[in-house]
Amino acid sequence: MKKVLPGKGINLIFSPFDLQLKHVFTIAGSSRTTTPVMLIKLQYDGNTGYGEASMPPYLGETHETAARFLSKLNLHQFTDPFRMDEILEYVDNAASGNTAAKAAVDIALHDLTGKLVKQPWYKIWGFNPENTPNTSFTIGIDHPDVVRQKTKEASLFNMLKVKLDGIHDREMIETIRSTTSTPLCVDVNQGWRNREEALDMIWWLKEKGVEFVEQPMPVERPEDNAWLTEQSPLPVIGDEAVQRLADVQKAKGVYSGINIKLMKCTGMREAHKMVLLARSLGLRVMLGCMTETSCAISAAAQLSPKADWADLDGNLLIANDPFSGITIDNGKIILNQNPGVGITLNENII
Amino acid sequence: MKKVLPGKGINLIFSPFDLQLKHVFTIAGSSRTTTPVMLIKLQYDGNTGYGEASMPPYLGETHETAARFLSKLNLHQFTDPFRMDEILEYVDNAASGNTAAKAAVDIALHDLTGKLVKQPWYKIWGFNPENTPNTSFTIGIDHPDVVRQKTKEASLFNMLKVKLDGIHDREMIETIRSTTSTPLCVDVNQGWRNREEALDMIWWLKEKGVEFVEQPMPVERPEDNAWLTEQSPLPVIGDEAVQRLADVQKAKGVYSGINIKLMKCTGMREAHKMVLLARSLGLRVMLGCMTETSCAISAAAQLSPKADWADLDGNLLIANDPFSGITIDNGKIILNQNPGVGITLNENII
Repeated sequence: MKKVLPGKGINLIFSPFDLQLKHVFTIAGSSRTTTPVMLIKLQYDGNTGYGEASMPPYLGETHETAARFLSKLNLHQFTDPFRMDEILEYVDNAASGNTAAKAAVDIALHDLTGKLVKQPWYKIWGFNPENTPNTSFTIGIDHPDVVRQKTKEASLFNMLKVKLDGIHDREMIETIRSTTSTPLCVDVNQGWRNREEALDMIWWLKEKGVEFVEQPMPVERPEDNAWLTEQSPLPVIGDEAVQRLADVQKAKGVYSGINIKLMKCTGMREAHKMVLLARSLGLRVMLGCMTETSCAISAAAQLSPKADWADLDGNLLIANDPFSGITIDNGKIILNQNPGVGITLNENII
Repeated sequence: MKKVLPGKGINLIFSPFDLQLKHVFTIAGSSRTTTPVMLIKLQYDGNTGYGEASMPPYLGETHETAARFLSKLNLHQFTDPFRMDEILEYVDNAASGNTAAKAAVDIALHDLTGKLVKQPWYKIWGFNPENTPNTSFTIGIDHPDVVRQKTKEASLFNMLKVKLDGIHDREMIETIRSTTSTPLCVDVNQGWRNREEALDMIWWLKEKGVEFVEQPMPVERPEDNAWLTEQSPLPVIGDEAVQRLADVQKAKGVYSGINIKLMKCTGMREAHKMVLLARSLGLRVMLGCMTETSCAISAAAQLSPKADWADLDGNLLIANDPFSGITIDNGKIILNQNPGVGITLNENII
């Protein structure tokens, strides 16, 4: 949709797009081969910033909800894109939810302002680009043959993130360990129900070279997660339990760290605050993602020098990435010198 | 002292300077007419950033300690001034204490990088410059005639900060109220010893138009300060209790808010984190200062759109300010568009 208005304000243009997944993606019983995203372009005074909303179906946003939300915004009232506090407060208050659509505006605004000052955001934030972590590569729950095959294909990564569900746990880990000795982390997605059994499993996982455990038990049971964090020989990271800034403080005492995702926290500005708050509270920091293009992945990667772990493999899972951005070298995130969020649009699709 | 080295690294030049105070300054029984400061210049690739360490004698730093600390630093090893995380960690670890000297380097680095991207820091941080607060003007403990005279001279301010000591409290307030109805805040500097009497005094102060109370009781008695904060009809702000980032979390539950001073927290980068953390924890934010030039005052003012209150009057108390920077209009802080910390050096003294 195009609505270019005259004058000095910010123009917002958005365009629905479907990411083609390289492999069928299975989570919680449903499978899919595409992920709907909304691509965003902000135009201001001859400059352009790009953003993206990734909307996997289980999170509730769609092309329709994003289009409705974005159509409602009047960014043309803002004549200074640097006033992010004001602009993003307006965007956040325009409607509840819509966190991916909000993140798209936030990312595009960072891309735009970074281009205006000719610097990438990791540099504006004062981070050392050499401190980027490795990114993990995710292995979903599947038949042992498929798991073995995917593990082999991921041989360039220094950490694999293994999805567990409380049913196939030992089988998944043993299948992977039959193929590689690469360090692992596991994402339980709230799948464990008994905390004593969970603790036994964590001890077993530790012996198998697992380094941390993500969201072991249901978020509605903070006491159980807190008990597990207290007892666990491995760090326990809150994922579903932590969406926005206000959740970080609540994570203290319940988890050892938090997983921050731009599509859930409304973007880079709030994510940056979450990183600083988590660090101040002594929480570990992980950066996560959805299946996304190099636009949102490169945006999240700007923060990665301050993260202990990154799981920013979303762009590697798609066959039709219209952007290029950050790269991975021997498993490690490599930031580039390009201004804004460090991306180039290679196809004229928005 | 000059030590300009060849090559692409950062050069550090520093020069001791004495601020001439317009009025004799009395605190805790001692009087003085000057404040020693160390002025800093960072040179990098043809660009210059200015900084300042203000060192009132009761805080322990001197021209000598600052010169010793700054001489020890080798900033020339850093070829990218944007890597503030790395550079300022190096500076902080070079020796303990020396917080004003560290702040001087931090301010100069912000001035330099802001100039490199041609933007003031309030803009890089995404703040709305219209949201700056009023600054208060400080009235020290003195004879009623002097207090009345100073109160009259401060007629352009929308808030006066009154120093109390637990002895002259009612006399000070009544003297000021005989001259003006301007809103007041009070700074007790730990002067109250009995919490019930303190609470009675706060109720009395509230009737006299006082809006908040700074550091009512000794910092070594957090339970008493917490009790007072809980009972008080006015916000209670921790000042001496809060120096650096690690103190912010401890202030939660003890005070309603914190006073942040660049010379105590090592500069703008840590102050920015303290503001974000305080906001996340639901603490109010005040920005304070020493007697300083417009350099350090303008640096602190970059953060002021995120502060509830500011007490940034230090440059107004000196007769030989070599810088111009932020201005005060009808009591309100006015940020300018100049890049970095928004200052101009008017005399060739460094």
